Amino acid sequence: MHNDLITLNPIGYVKTNVADADIPRQRAQILSELVILDDYSEALEGIEAYSHLFVLFWMHQVAMQDYRAKVHPRGRDDLPLTGVLATRARAHPNPIGLAVVELLERHANRLKVRRLDAYHGTPILDLKPYDPYDQVQDIRVPDWWERLRPQR
Amino acid sequence: MHNDLITLNPIGYVKTNVADADIPRQRAQILSELVILDDYSEALEGIEAYSHLFVLFWMHQVAMQDYRAKVHPRGRDDLPLTGVLATRARAHPNPIGLAVVELLERHANRLKVRRLDAYHGTPILDLKPYDPYDQVQDIRVPDWWERLRPQR
Repeated sequence: MHNDLITLNPIGYVKTNVADADIPRQRAQILSELVILDDYSEALEGIEAYSHLFVLFWMHQVAMQDYRAKVHPRGRDDLPLTGVLATRARAHPNPIGLAVVELLERHANRLKVRRLDAYHGTPILDLKPYDPYDQVQDIRVPDWWERLRPQR
Repeated sequence: MHNDLITLNPIGYVKTNVADADIPRQRAQILSELVILDDYSEALEGIEAYSHLFVLFWMHQVAMQDYRAKVHPRGRDDLPLTGVLATRARAHPNPIGLAVVELLERHANRLKVRRLDAYHGTPILDLKPYDPYDQVQDIRVPDWWERLRPQR
């Protein structure tokens, strides 16, 4: 059971002009286009009725071998060494990215979005509409997150 | 570029006693255990500081061939036929599940969670802590979602 291999095909690719180095800091200003394969144009019908989407993407610049059990969140040595699954760092065992983005426009199989922290050329695995079930009001996060909160 | 095959290995499996048929209706009452492989125990360190997690899982009972471009949301004929990527239905091109769950307890590599709509034996692909960036306050959803909202 523990060696079940799962295979996926991208449903599209990220197009963005933002330089890689800008991504961590300026997320609110990042504009990208999700270019979905023509095969799936019909599957997008009605997505424009949502203001926000989850984008699941494959961090193709992160190899499986880059996995580390513990990391300093956000690459900051002043934050405590933490299990990687307890962070949004890229060194997860399966390097799948998850981002909440704002959907600005749809033109056929191209979606213009804001706040996607993914590089140009990133393979897209799936899209999910963000709905009221995803809005959790009262959450608890680690102390280091609370300390950083004003820097959002 | 369009035939990049991506391969993943599960990081663990879902353990739950809830019968499959109960999942759509009674999500708030579903208790499950995420049994993470021993290899990744260290990677969980600190996860208990979060109240909520995203669980990414592989819908192993949904074959790739089950993809449909359009579906009636929630299997209800009275809701408009909609592109599958504009719904949280299971018939997505890559059948990856995404759930926001409440983290109740951690015992080493076992996480007790509430609200996971995944069957017993489901392979887990990734975990992400839910943080304030994931809390979107003002969202727009389709009319059919608004009509169903009282039934949450």
